[in-house]
Amino acid sequence: MNGAQSLLTTLVGNGVDVCFANPGTSEMHFVAALDAVPQMRGVLTLFEGVATGAADGYARMADKPAGVLLHLGPGLGNGLANLHNARRARTPMVVVVGDHATYHKKYDAPLESDIDSVAGTVSGWVRRTADTADVAADAAAAVAASRAGKVSTLILPADVSWADGGGTAPAIPAPADPTVDDDAVLSAVDVLQSGAPTVILIGGDATRTAGLAAAVRIAAASGARVLCETFPARLRRGAGIPAIERLAYFAEAAQEQLAGAAHLILAGATSPVSFFAYPGKPSDLVPDGCDVHILAEHAGAAAALEQLADELSPGSIAEVAAAARPEMPTGGLTAFSVAAVVGALLPENAVIVDESNTAGVGVAAATAGAPAHDVLTLTGGAIGYGIPAAVGAAIAAPDRPVLSLQADGSAMYTLSALWTQARENLDVTTVIFNNGTYDILRIELARVGATSAGAPGPRALELLDLGSPAIDFVKIAEGMGVPARRVTTAEELAGAMADAFAAPGPHLIDAVVPSLFG
Amino acid sequence: MNGAQSLLTTLVGNGVDVCFANPGTSEMHFVAALDAVPQMRGVLTLFEGVATGAADGYARMADKPAGVLLHLGPGLGNGLANLHNARRARTPMVVVVGDHATYHKKYDAPLESDIDSVAGTVSGWVRRTADTADVAADAAAAVAASRAGKVSTLILPADVSWADGGGTAPAIPAPADPTVDDDAVLSAVDVLQSGAPTVILIGGDATRTAGLAAAVRIAAASGARVLCETFPARLRRGAGIPAIERLAYFAEAAQEQLAGAAHLILAGATSPVSFFAYPGKPSDLVPDGCDVHILAEHAGAAAALEQLADELSPGSIAEVAAAARPEMPTGGLTAFSVAAVVGALLPENAVIVDESNTAGVGVAAATAGAPAHDVLTLTGGAIGYGIPAAVGAAIAAPDRPVLSLQADGSAMYTLSALWTQARENLDVTTVIFNNGTYDILRIELARVGATSAGAPGPRALELLDLGSPAIDFVKIAEGMGVPARRVTTAEELAGAMADAFAAPGPHLIDAVVPSLFG
Repeated sequence: MNGAQSLLTTLVGNGVDVCFANPGTSEMHFVAALDAVPQMRGVLTLFEGVATGAADGYARMADKPAGVLLHLGPGLGNGLANLHNARRARTPMVVVVGDHATYHKKYDAPLESDIDSVAGTVSGWVRRTADTADVAADAAAAVAASRAGKVSTLILPADVSWADGGGTAPAIPAPADPTVDDDAVLSAVDVLQSGAPTVILIGGDATRTAGLAAAVRIAAASGARVLCETFPARLRRGAGIPAIERLAYFAEAAQEQLAGAAHLILAGATSPVSFFAYPGKPSDLVPDGCDVHILAEHAGAAAALEQLADELSPGSIAEVAAAARPEMPTGGLTAFSVAAVVGALLPENAVIVDESNTAGVGVAAATAGAPAHDVLTLTGGAIGYGIPAAVGAAIAAPDRPVLSLQADGSAMYTLSALWTQARENLDVTTVIFNNGTYDILRIELARVGATSAGAPGPRALELLDLGSPAIDFVKIAEGMGVPARRVTTAEELAGAMADAFAAPGPHLIDAVVPSLFG
Repeated sequence: MNGAQSLLTTLVGNGVDVCFANPGTSEMHFVAALDAVPQMRGVLTLFEGVATGAADGYARMADKPAGVLLHLGPGLGNGLANLHNARRARTPMVVVVGDHATYHKKYDAPLESDIDSVAGTVSGWVRRTADTADVAADAAAAVAASRAGKVSTLILPADVSWADGGGTAPAIPAPADPTVDDDAVLSAVDVLQSGAPTVILIGGDATRTAGLAAAVRIAAASGARVLCETFPARLRRGAGIPAIERLAYFAEAAQEQLAGAAHLILAGATSPVSFFAYPGKPSDLVPDGCDVHILAEHAGAAAALEQLADELSPGSIAEVAAAARPEMPTGGLTAFSVAAVVGALLPENAVIVDESNTAGVGVAAATAGAPAHDVLTLTGGAIGYGIPAAVGAAIAAPDRPVLSLQADGSAMYTLSALWTQARENLDVTTVIFNNGTYDILRIELARVGATSAGAPGPRALELLDLGSPAIDFVKIAEGMGVPARRVTTAEELAGAMADAFAAPGPHLIDAVVPSLFG
């Protein structure tokens, strides 16, 4: 078999059987090999950032890596922002970047560029395969490395792909469960039994039901406050699930949540820092004099919390959120009434992909008692994540409804993911919070003190305005084959959302809401 | 003044008075400074690849750099593909990448990433400004470096931007004209007078009228064959302009053009290589035994050709292309009838931004005798260039009609440039060659031998198909505020094109054409 067939065979043999692809000439043997290795599902995306975002959403829901196929350095560049988000989410992913043939690189052909340097900035593992005979072993190593929560990038020269001499590699065994650090657990017991005010910040694998339940048991037994990291990769929540408040995005609010803590215990989360720096405000959000203790890293956080809960309160049962839905709102839409409609209508076992940003400020409260669901968030802050991630989530979880809550500005980065939703007939309902402005930047403009001398100037405000011309997401979605509807009242939104959830395939709802600035 | 005001003041003082921007929190002081430095025109783009592509198109037409404002590493990543094209075009550009505050970086906040490594892959000049007092000097140095045909990247931490203590820098004098290498000219005279078969390959600054005229004079005097590089940054052509054939994209065709040459003289062009490698075919397209001579590098090629022409044939006048338009076609559209309509209707002094790829195969011949115009091409092969570059070209040349010839697949990468065209009311007519497939990849699939055993398999072909669902560019364009029309006959296209050229502002024409594969 040739190198491309060796690659696909090895990936499939290691459980990587979906590949989000935007190929070019140097990847044509990979494309041709899809007919030789039909166990691999190739999913076409029309932009590389869609492929990488989809692979991120897929892995968060499937708990295994997807493959990504990119074309040379520019293709990797186009995929970089969502690889950044995946890196922050500790998402396992196997990225194959096709390159020029080994002997062709010295000619500096127009598409030649430094792939390796770019790949290194987002990948936990990078390898350039030089020989077709090595493809299988390299591909298996890429999968293995990814399982530790890394983006693995395999750079595959065209001649390595097309030459014969490829083989197979034995399947890589699943990694062992992370071990719990008994000493760290005992230290945490001491802290929690000391009576000093303590906050436990959870993240990593502790944001699923088991970790949440353990954290809530610990809180109940010790009086500690439990918070979840601001942007969890995948958070379970809703009726019947132990509820944990998230650390706020805005540093001022986060400082209030952490105020007074003498101890901070980290379980799968990193020590809290401000998302951006602001003049005269601290970057490190740990209160002065607060001791920070690491209970567990990203993987193994749930297990450590469970052991800690059993030490403190053996046999206890975590309190869970009660079923409750907001009253269905009426009248003209606001960001909050959109949230209430979402809370009122969220289907059972949904996946919410949340890139609603400022406009989604009311969603968490409105869905706290909705049927249990998973939330995927913008872990790395690189916008253009939501619509692609919804593609991947829907492919990973075809029996679950996917609700993609999307800010208008962020939606414009990777719009063509809608086309892939249509092509694959994915059960995704996208709600655009269309407020016609970069509201987050209008807030940040003031927060960074750029307008300390008064109101922002007209030329600054103009650069943050999305309303001239107004963006019509209905037409854009329909242009890509996704049925869409524009709504301006809560009643219309409720009708559109109910219809979308009831019908298979993708739908988009363009929900016109006022800016927070009126 | 603060660092941001110092930056804008310095840029404007050095002639950089347009900035294509997609800002975030770390760039808010730059945005606020637009009101303090109103000579700087800020142009909002909704995706960073639009900003970088627009700056490329701008500089190619304005012959001076634009500024670009990007947000952190992910923003730079999103802009990378069109920075790659700019690097290949030797486009002057000043890219400002905002970064976290200097003291904030150690906290590894969610958006922290290795900006420097990514910037280094596309930039001829990179600097990270550490002190507000250095902003003016660094900005001036960035402009100066860019004028040598480089992407200059200035990484500006937020606190350097917001702190007071910024100053001004003296304006940088324009660079001296490149000197001609007299020895290289005399060597070329010897080669051309030897009687041996010779090809002159021109590029760089020789693809404007002066260089073209000199090259045609040399060809007439010596019998040498003159060719233009495959993807010139900006090529002048049409009625009244000396006409020079371009080196073909497909290596087989390029080899035929170069066959039999004993000498190859390079004037602003690099030695010809195959765009990609193909099994069993050479990468280096220089014929065996052919001697390669460098007459001039990218800058100074026109001057060297003029000196050479004067040596060979003092006082001679270059032959120019006669005015001629194709007959207006009728009936159902094909790629060739679209080209004929373009040739028949091209307005005076147009700028053609050409990303029509395979579908545009007939355009060069059909416009050879159309009114004189400039053509901007896809220098680096990174698709998603055309719609953004048209934005920049229209801003640089507001009195000239811009015709954006765009392949459907490539259009999907940076679609939101249409919104910026509408917002700025730019006189751009976009013609989408909508054939519903990645035709270039169907060709390449065969050329790389991936289907040597027979026809491509159904799963491979499916991954190159854009037709399910069909993309409706009329709706997409209208969704972004650009009036649009779908055409399926030559008559409809002619009517739509005439209307678009007659009315100010942007228009899009969705021209449905068959795939080359039927």
